[in-house]
Amino acid sequence: MKIAVDAMGGDKAPEVVIEGTAEALELYPFMDIVLVGHEQRISHLLKHHGITNHPRLRLVHAEQAIAMNEPSMSAVRGKKNSSMTICAELVQKGEADAVVSAGHTGAAVAATTFRMKLLPGVERAGIAAIMPSTKGHFVFIDAGANVDCKPIHLAQFAIMGEIFAKSMGVHRPKVGLLSIGEEDVKGNDLTKEAFKMLSTMPINFIGNVEGKLLYERVADVVVCDGFVGNIVLKSSESLAKAISFWIKKAFTKNTLRQASAILAKNAFKELKEIADYEEYGGAPLLGVNGVCIIGHGSSSPKAIKNAIRVAGEIVKFKVNEHITARLAECGIAVKGHGN
Amino acid sequence: MKIAVDAMGGDKAPEVVIEGTAEALELYPFMDIVLVGHEQRISHLLKHHGITNHPRLRLVHAEQAIAMNEPSMSAVRGKKNSSMTICAELVQKGEADAVVSAGHTGAAVAATTFRMKLLPGVERAGIAAIMPSTKGHFVFIDAGANVDCKPIHLAQFAIMGEIFAKSMGVHRPKVGLLSIGEEDVKGNDLTKEAFKMLSTMPINFIGNVEGKLLYERVADVVVCDGFVGNIVLKSSESLAKAISFWIKKAFTKNTLRQASAILAKNAFKELKEIADYEEYGGAPLLGVNGVCIIGHGSSSPKAIKNAIRVAGEIVKFKVNEHITARLAECGIAVKGHGN
Repeated sequence: MKIAVDAMGGDKAPEVVIEGTAEALELYPFMDIVLVGHEQRISHLLKHHGITNHPRLRLVHAEQAIAMNEPSMSAVRGKKNSSMTICAELVQKGEADAVVSAGHTGAAVAATTFRMKLLPGVERAGIAAIMPSTKGHFVFIDAGANVDCKPIHLAQFAIMGEIFAKSMGVHRPKVGLLSIGEEDVKGNDLTKEAFKMLSTMPINFIGNVEGKLLYERVADVVVCDGFVGNIVLKSSESLAKAISFWIKKAFTKNTLRQASAILAKNAFKELKEIADYEEYGGAPLLGVNGVCIIGHGSSSPKAIKNAIRVAGEIVKFKVNEHITARLAECGIAVKGHGN
Repeated sequence: MKIAVDAMGGDKAPEVVIEGTAEALELYPFMDIVLVGHEQRISHLLKHHGITNHPRLRLVHAEQAIAMNEPSMSAVRGKKNSSMTICAELVQKGEADAVVSAGHTGAAVAATTFRMKLLPGVERAGIAAIMPSTKGHFVFIDAGANVDCKPIHLAQFAIMGEIFAKSMGVHRPKVGLLSIGEEDVKGNDLTKEAFKMLSTMPINFIGNVEGKLLYERVADVVVCDGFVGNIVLKSSESLAKAISFWIKKAFTKNTLRQASAILAKNAFKELKEIADYEEYGGAPLLGVNGVCIIGHGSSSPKAIKNAIRVAGEIVKFKVNEHITARLAECGIAVKGHGN
């Protein structure tokens, strides 16, 4: 199994990416890694981690890198030699099974969709984020790949999310549609149509999931369009950050509270770990013909290492083959689309 | 000034509503309150709080009440004698200046829109929620009145939010559009068109506000459609609840942590107060021809009392007159719409 890693993607690239890659090489002996990045800029880092001539590491030079603030389309079209684009090309040419990038999400979506194309019958790829809840994790799709969706896209996301949840061991995943009320008549034009479509499919569809129940895990898979998904995901991160700011402020106000915080330092550590995306490493972009894991921009070495692991698991579980078969089974593979 | 209060609206109505009304009567001597509810069901509560023959309280009987789980449209059409509908009629007939209800949000929107109609030039009313952030509060509109919006609706919400922020003392409020990227080209079809419209208006428009910055208060007013708004508001409440659950779990795990929690009990109290909607009491439904404050379903007496206060402030500040004038000034009053 070969995983292409975008050495130049992420806020702290290439340093953290190389460190995470070195950890993955040590931990996962069944994996080969193709590191794509600027040779001169990464050679000392490879040396530092003692992986310069590692037998399971291949280095591919990329002259360019896509910055976090570039418009995705023009970056992908204009920078044909970017590390992200070359990663996608490696999968396209069969030289790698999966791509891992903690870089520009939009560019990763565009590059993989252009180069690797979509799975047969798939109209849009969707980002499947893993979210915490009071009762364990759930899959949240689309977390930001497609802003303007049609009902068929939400129906296809439901299948992708279902297969992804199954790959993580969930039996007969419950699928919910993110909306503003429980009843089928509640929602916007998009969700009302998607509701009808999902109701006719042979899946474990539990109906609408309201925002107020999102973090209570009423479903194993929650489906929404990428505009709503991105905003929910990012505003949740923003709120968690704000709450953490308020907690810090409250617990540093006086000596008594500071002492209390020291006593309970393990409690704070545990709280931090709950929403720790480092554990999942990244979110798969499902629906593309190949495997692509999109890491958080601020990924740590641990997050990179875990993103590489997740990529391997998705390849191993044959998530894509299952998606293709299940779309056909559910009668929602769109002819003339995908590879 | 006369405020109509829906005695039957809310999870804990009529008990908490009557208690909140009694507090408001005592605190706000410049207000008359018209309490609308089922006479027999509330008479003992009025007696209990000693306001049966209060000189500034008028009782209006309502034979029906709208339950929290009824479909809004059929509830409003079918129950012409519901407390919510009668409240809206009182404003329509000039017998009250404002309505306060902690009942069914959809029914409150439908009843006020049908009875009170919209302000001249307004196409849709929007719910203006007050949200906490690390740098103070901001106005979030539309928090759930309209699921399928057009660009003009978002432009009108911007004005309503601006005036509401001004009524709370913000000078030249910064207005942002909730979207998925900073640049004007980022967003869905709706926000991209709304961005263009907002850019031409004589307001302090700061462009898109991303989810990741929502709780850092980059804008005084954040505009979005009611589908996204409802989901962001409710999923944020859900996340805050989940975090509070995790904190409780972490701080009760062993005796040391329990002791620490006791030491820091004021810190926890302060944290709870940050997101305390009781302080704002409720969110105004802006754009209707009259004042309507929608309280949280689980409103406490304090929340009801504050919702009554907010209703009075909006009447006093003449928010509606300012909105009408400002829509015309900005060239986005739609002819043939509203009253």
